[in-house]
Amino acid sequence: MKDLEDRILRDGKCLPGGILKVDNFINHQMDSALMFQCSAEFMRLFADKKIDKILTVEASGIAPAVFAGYLMRVPVVFAKKAVPKTMDSAYVTTVHSFTKQRDYTVFVSKEYLHEGERILVIDDFLACGNASVGLADLCRQAGAAVQGFGFIVEKAFQGGRAEIEKAVPGCRVESLAVIESLDNGTIEFAKEM
Amino acid sequence: MKDLEDRILRDGKCLPGGILKVDNFINHQMDSALMFQCSAEFMRLFADKKIDKILTVEASGIAPAVFAGYLMRVPVVFAKKAVPKTMDSAYVTTVHSFTKQRDYTVFVSKEYLHEGERILVIDDFLACGNASVGLADLCRQAGAAVQGFGFIVEKAFQGGRAEIEKAVPGCRVESLAVIESLDNGTIEFAKEM
Repeated sequence: MKDLEDRILRDGKCLPGGILKVDNFINHQMDSALMFQCSAEFMRLFADKKIDKILTVEASGIAPAVFAGYLMRVPVVFAKKAVPKTMDSAYVTTVHSFTKQRDYTVFVSKEYLHEGERILVIDDFLACGNASVGLADLCRQAGAAVQGFGFIVEKAFQGGRAEIEKAVPGCRVESLAVIESLDNGTIEFAKEM
Repeated sequence: MKDLEDRILRDGKCLPGGILKVDNFINHQMDSALMFQCSAEFMRLFADKKIDKILTVEASGIAPAVFAGYLMRVPVVFAKKAVPKTMDSAYVTTVHSFTKQRDYTVFVSKEYLHEGERILVIDDFLACGNASVGLADLCRQAGAAVQGFGFIVEKAFQGGRAEIEKAVPGCRVESLAVIESLDNGTIEFAKEM
């Protein structure tokens, strides 16, 4: 998505260790108009799929997911990282965070993920794919069927796409900006396929 | 807001200890259309205020905040509960969670909150007011001016409004559904003023 790539080039910052900082417009301060545009693009990309529900994980996935849910008129569920008092029974999985270099647990209440539901997973970043594989695992536990994955930014050099394809063979993965390399502090996008 | 009150009566559940469970449509599974409607109501309620930025806290504040940001065409910042690697310098405050019965720390990067900015704080719940007072404290540290607070649900019997008024005297507080009591498992709304 051209507007997104332009924005990443303008406001994104490369940090050591393959980290792309986009907290100016995606994951701390948010440009709602750009998020809306991203979600409209997700709707277009998955227009041929029947989707019953969108699944994301707190916190930065919520903005693109909730706009997509609004546009596609389906409920949105965000997986939580800590079990609240008010949750009785949940699907649980463990995820390794690349940025934070530690494991954490994510949960979805059994009330909000059901057998046979067709799920679109939306998140801000695809890096190593751990969060996405975790969300796919929650769906598998529930007997729900993942129809696709939509990401705002994919860091292709971290191999997350292959991990998703291993976990959910044949599943469609769409990323609105695909970064091929952050070497030498330079953002390089993948060529259009 | 009538639609919101109806939905709370239909899908909200009273749990022991003054807890209202609304994770069917607000803070785990989200009804995006209802969130959008709530945000449109915030826009109407604060139409006479000049707002530069919306501030919320992860995770359940993000959906109403990002819709409000979209409608009001201003950036949205969500305060984070754990300092990520990629954040250099931040305003920090401590908040006590009523639901989780523990203290946690919230942060906003100094890059995204500035002196003189006029801030609208949006969150899903007003209970004891601790999170809101924390967000007001982050604004105070930055020299930003809180113009108002907008909540989807207020549990009036937990006194949060008074805490906000103590922290930010004269500040306008608007809640779309005000719950007077959850005694005996019954949801009772405040009478319209």
